[in-house]
Amino acid sequence: MADKAVVLLSGGLDSATAAAEARQDGFDLYALTVDYGQRHRVELDAARRVAESLGVKRHVFLHVDLTVFGGSALTDRLSVPKDRAVEAVPHDIPVTYVPARNTILLALALAYAETERASDIYLGINALDYSGYPDCRPQFVQAFQQLANLATKAGVEGTKSFRIRAPLLHMSKVEIIRRGLELGVDYGLTHSCYDPLPDGRSCGRCDACRLRRRGFAQAGVPDPISYADDGD
Amino acid sequence: MADKAVVLLSGGLDSATAAAEARQDGFDLYALTVDYGQRHRVELDAARRVAESLGVKRHVFLHVDLTVFGGSALTDRLSVPKDRAVEAVPHDIPVTYVPARNTILLALALAYAETERASDIYLGINALDYSGYPDCRPQFVQAFQQLANLATKAGVEGTKSFRIRAPLLHMSKVEIIRRGLELGVDYGLTHSCYDPLPDGRSCGRCDACRLRRRGFAQAGVPDPISYADDGD
Repeated sequence: MADKAVVLLSGGLDSATAAAEARQDGFDLYALTVDYGQRHRVELDAARRVAESLGVKRHVFLHVDLTVFGGSALTDRLSVPKDRAVEAVPHDIPVTYVPARNTILLALALAYAETERASDIYLGINALDYSGYPDCRPQFVQAFQQLANLATKAGVEGTKSFRIRAPLLHMSKVEIIRRGLELGVDYGLTHSCYDPLPDGRSCGRCDACRLRRRGFAQAGVPDPISYADDGD
Repeated sequence: MADKAVVLLSGGLDSATAAAEARQDGFDLYALTVDYGQRHRVELDAARRVAESLGVKRHVFLHVDLTVFGGSALTDRLSVPKDRAVEAVPHDIPVTYVPARNTILLALALAYAETERASDIYLGINALDYSGYPDCRPQFVQAFQQLANLATKAGVEGTKSFRIRAPLLHMSKVEIIRRGLELGVDYGLTHSCYDPLPDGRSCGRCDACRLRRRGFAQAGVPDPISYADDGD
């Protein structure tokens, strides 16, 4: 029987690629998708499809309503910025930053990992395209791994040492897409847009859409999903 | 206007005392009560009463269903141990341990603190009576504080430095009770039992009840709550 890995699966391009890396590394996948009350619920359906396509052993959906705290365009009523130059995105902390999001996601993944006796947790964070997010940096990943081994029964008893794996941490979007295609990821199942249309199509204009589109353009492959301005 | 502190309030004796310390330290209190699907839901009512009695500015209740992961007598269908000698409790990791619970609670408190621009987070953990819980140790608290300052916008921008405060960390139950009485905590509002009766009375026999009763006995004051065996 293969070792188990917990994979945080948002339904986006990055987490799908990170999960494919975990599968490539030989793990049985235990997916966790957290609905933190974000507006783009179409992501949850994408997460379900991606999980199926990767053959996960178990997929847990958990609702944690971070909208009670407010403080982000993704959970609050602020508007998602549109049409910003991709180059302008990385150097400030975007309004789409969700307070403590990755800390919460990893804490939940740790509970899942401890219960399933998995030692590895994969997540698709990325320090390049999202350098404005404090919880997408290598030192954050390191600090959480240290915490995980102090916080848990397995860590304390020395029976298990947790590893937090962020295989995309130092990759650009185009590198991620190239790697995912190598690993057989079906990006047509994924969803990236912060502000999708009611019919599920991506807006094409938010930071996430613009980064994704530029990535596919640079990779020289068509993006298989539908955008609001397709055919314009 | 006073500085803000987030206080994790379970409705138990320890968290009520930690919150009273935060008030004593001059903070405006922002309470967070997490319902992680535990069986003792009567705790949530206790949390509401305790918060009112302490004059909290805002009280957020958040449901995070940790029962989806399983793995603990508090969230699973395992039975809560009864009638164990108090001395036997600290040295193993109890079945009532909830995987990664304090990591999850602190992660949620961090999101709340960041949104409210609070720099201090109080929690009532205790390394003595619960030394079997890995996430009740000083090194866990330190590691989380380090993580908090790496994980957040405020930490990265250097506008705010988070402090995780565990004022009861090195106190015994009797010391906690004496301190709480000094601070004016009404322990009649609190709830500790892992396995309360349907009428809300405490069982008197689980580890939490036994530790609490011994604490009050050692403090030489009556425990104001009702137990199943009162009048026996």
